[in-house]
Amino acid sequence: MESPSLPVTAKDWTSTGLHRVLCMQGGEGDVSYVNNSDCQALAITLCKPILISSLQSIKLFTSPIIRIADLGCATGSNTFDTVDTVVETLRQLFTAVYGGGSLEFEAFFCDLPSNDFNMLFRLLSEKQKVDSAKYFANGVAGSFCDRLFPRGTIHVAVSLSALHWLSQIPEKVLEKGSRTWNKGKTWIEGAKKEVVDAYAEQSDKDLSDFLKCRKEEMVEGGVLFVLMGGRPSGSSSQFGDQDTRVKHPFTTTMEQAWQDLIDEGLIDEETRDGFNIPAYMRSPEEVAAGIDRIGGFKIEKMEYMKIVEYSDEKHEEWKKDPVSYGRARTNLVQAAIRPMVEVYLGVDLCDELFKRYENRVSTTREFLHITCFFGVVAFSAIRIE
Amino acid sequence: MESPSLPVTAKDWTSTGLHRVLCMQGGEGDVSYVNNSDCQALAITLCKPILISSLQSIKLFTSPIIRIADLGCATGSNTFDTVDTVVETLRQLFTAVYGGGSLEFEAFFCDLPSNDFNMLFRLLSEKQKVDSAKYFANGVAGSFCDRLFPRGTIHVAVSLSALHWLSQIPEKVLEKGSRTWNKGKTWIEGAKKEVVDAYAEQSDKDLSDFLKCRKEEMVEGGVLFVLMGGRPSGSSSQFGDQDTRVKHPFTTTMEQAWQDLIDEGLIDEETRDGFNIPAYMRSPEEVAAGIDRIGGFKIEKMEYMKIVEYSDEKHEEWKKDPVSYGRARTNLVQAAIRPMVEVYLGVDLCDELFKRYENRVSTTREFLHITCFFGVVAFSAIRIE
Repeated sequence: MESPSLPVTAKDWTSTGLHRVLCMQGGEGDVSYVNNSDCQALAITLCKPILISSLQSIKLFTSPIIRIADLGCATGSNTFDTVDTVVETLRQLFTAVYGGGSLEFEAFFCDLPSNDFNMLFRLLSEKQKVDSAKYFANGVAGSFCDRLFPRGTIHVAVSLSALHWLSQIPEKVLEKGSRTWNKGKTWIEGAKKEVVDAYAEQSDKDLSDFLKCRKEEMVEGGVLFVLMGGRPSGSSSQFGDQDTRVKHPFTTTMEQAWQDLIDEGLIDEETRDGFNIPAYMRSPEEVAAGIDRIGGFKIEKMEYMKIVEYSDEKHEEWKKDPVSYGRARTNLVQAAIRPMVEVYLGVDLCDELFKRYENRVSTTREFLHITCFFGVVAFSAIRIE
Repeated sequence: MESPSLPVTAKDWTSTGLHRVLCMQGGEGDVSYVNNSDCQALAITLCKPILISSLQSIKLFTSPIIRIADLGCATGSNTFDTVDTVVETLRQLFTAVYGGGSLEFEAFFCDLPSNDFNMLFRLLSEKQKVDSAKYFANGVAGSFCDRLFPRGTIHVAVSLSALHWLSQIPEKVLEKGSRTWNKGKTWIEGAKKEVVDAYAEQSDKDLSDFLKCRKEEMVEGGVLFVLMGGRPSGSSSQFGDQDTRVKHPFTTTMEQAWQDLIDEGLIDEETRDGFNIPAYMRSPEEVAAGIDRIGGFKIEKMEYMKIVEYSDEKHEEWKKDPVSYGRARTNLVQAAIRPMVEVYLGVDLCDELFKRYENRVSTTREFLHITCFFGVVAFSAIRIE
C-alpha cells in the first residue's frame, strides 16, 4: 500500500505552523485535556506552598486593582484553582494590613489561538455561578513567548505545566539528511546528541523570550510562579530514572506505534522522522541560568519534584485490567499531542497511530510492574529593578 | 402526527436559559454571523463620524494605557474596524499633544459565554498577522448587563448592534393563558399592547443595568458609543414604515413559517406561542430617558438612522433570482436567531422551520418589489461626575 499524501510536510513544522496546532485537546471527551490532567493537578497541589510563601512575602501594592496572568491555561481546569489561591491569599493579606477595602482582581487566562477558549469560558461561567465571581476574567489568545500585556501592569504571573512545550521544532531538526535530522525517532529521549543540543538551544531561546516579556509586563515586586516538566540536576536524559525512560508515554510505546505504521506500509520512514514532539524537560540549572541571563528577577525558591504517574490503588486496578489501562494511557497521550499528530498525519492515520499505541500499551504487561514518574521544576521569583 | 417532545419548555426561557443560547451563529458557514452582517457593517460605517467626533473632544488621559471595551462583539468581524478607529484616533490625538510617547492600548472583546470566542480569536490572530498588533486583545465572556471590569478602568466603551437584544423574555410573557401570553405570535410587532409593554419594561431594565455597570467601570471623561436596532420617535410600531413592518425578517414570513409547522402537525400552537424573539427596537426618547434615569453620562449626540436592506444593484439581481434571494434571506435570519430556535425546537424541527421560511421568502414575489429598512439609534456620551 502506498503512503497516502500527508496534509502537512515536515518543513511546515516551523514556528508559525506549530503555533497553530500546539494545544491541549479541547472539549470534554475521553481524550480531552480536561479529563486527562490529574498528574498536572497533583504537581500543582504539591508546589502550591512555594507560590503561597512568595505571595506572603509580596510587597503590598498601592494599586486598588491586582492583575493576575495565567500563561498556558489550556481549558482552565487545572488553573482556576491556582488563580483562586492567588486571589484569596492576597485578599487576606490586604485585609490584615488595610482592614479590607475595595480591592478588585482581574485574571487573564492566556494560551495559543488554537486553544479551546469556548470550553474555557464555559467552565469559567459554570464555576462563577457556584462561587460568585472573585475576579473579572479575560481570555488572551497569543504565545507567551510574545508580549501579551502593556508594560508594568501584571502583579502575579503563573505558568503551570506549559513551559516545557517549545514554541517550534528547531529548524535544523527538520533538515532532511543533516546531522540534526532525528532519524528513527519522534522525540529526543535517546536521540543523537546533535538533536538534543538543538532542542536545548530552542529551549533556552524560548525561556529567554518568556522571561524578557514577563520582565516588561510585570510590576516591580510582582511574583512569577512557574511549574514545568523538568529533569533532575545533572541528568543528560530527559528523565531521572531508567524505568521512566522506558515507560514514559513519549518514549518506547510511541516509537513502537510509529514503527507499526511503517511496517504496515501506512507511512514511510521519512514521515515518521519528520514528526517531532516539541517538548523539552529543563534541569533546574538550565532554568536558573535563563533567569540569570535575562535579569530583573530574584529567585525565591526553586525545586525539582517527581510526581508518580498514579496511586498504588490505581496501580493494582490496572494490573487486573490491562485493556482499560491501555485506553487510559492512550487518552492521556492524546490529550497532549493529538491535535499536532492530527494536523501532521490527517485524521485517519492519526486514529491508526493511536490504535496501535493503545494495543501496544495493553499488551506490554511488564509496564504494569514498573513505575513512571513525571519530573517537574517549579520556581517562584520576584520582579526586581 | 403528534408533536415530538421539545427539548426546552417555554418556562425555561427565563434569564438563565436565554443567557446560554442568545448568541449570533458562530463559525463561518453560510448561516454564520460573520457572513451575514453586511447591514450591521453599513450602519457602523454611517455612524462612525459620531464616534470620531466624541473621541476628538475627549479629555486627554494621564494614564499611559488606554482600555477599550467592545460590548457584544459576536465573532468580531464588524467590530475590529471600530476598535481600530478608536486606537488610531486616540493615538493621533496623543501624538499631536504629547509628540507621541509610550501609549499602549488594551482592547476587551465581550460577549455572552455562548458566543464563538474560538472564531473571534482566530479572526483576531489572522488580522494581527497582517497589521502588526495595535493593541493587546482580550476576550471577556459575560453579559453586558453585569459588571465586566474593575471600577474606573475603561476609557472607551462601544456597543455595536447588540443592545436591542434583551437579556430575557419578560417572565409574564411566558405565563400561559395570562393577558401577556403572546398568543399567535413569535415577536411583538403587531402583538397585544400588554405584550409590547412587557417588552418595553424589560428593555428599560436592561438599558438601566447596562448603563449602571458602565457608569461604574468607566473613567471620568471616557466615551461611550452605542449603536443598536431602534425605531423612529413617536412610532408605536417597532418600525417606521408599513413596508418594513410587512417585510422585516421577524414579521410576516417568520409567522407564516411557524404557522406552516402547526398546519402540518409538526408542533402545536402552544409551542409557537411560547417562542418569542428577544429583541426590542428602542426609540431615541426611550434611550435618552434611560441615560437620564441612571445619570453619570452627558449625551454628545444621538441619531436615528434608516439603513436600506440592500443596494439597488442587489435588488435588481434578487428580482431575477428569487430562489437565491430566499436562501440569502434565510441565512440572514438564521445568523441572528438560529442558536435560540435550535435549543427551543431541537435541530430537526429547527431545520424544518427554516426550510419553510426559505420557501415562503422565495415564493412571496411581492416582497421583491418593496423595500425593508433596518432602523438604528446611535449615540455617544461622555462619562461625567
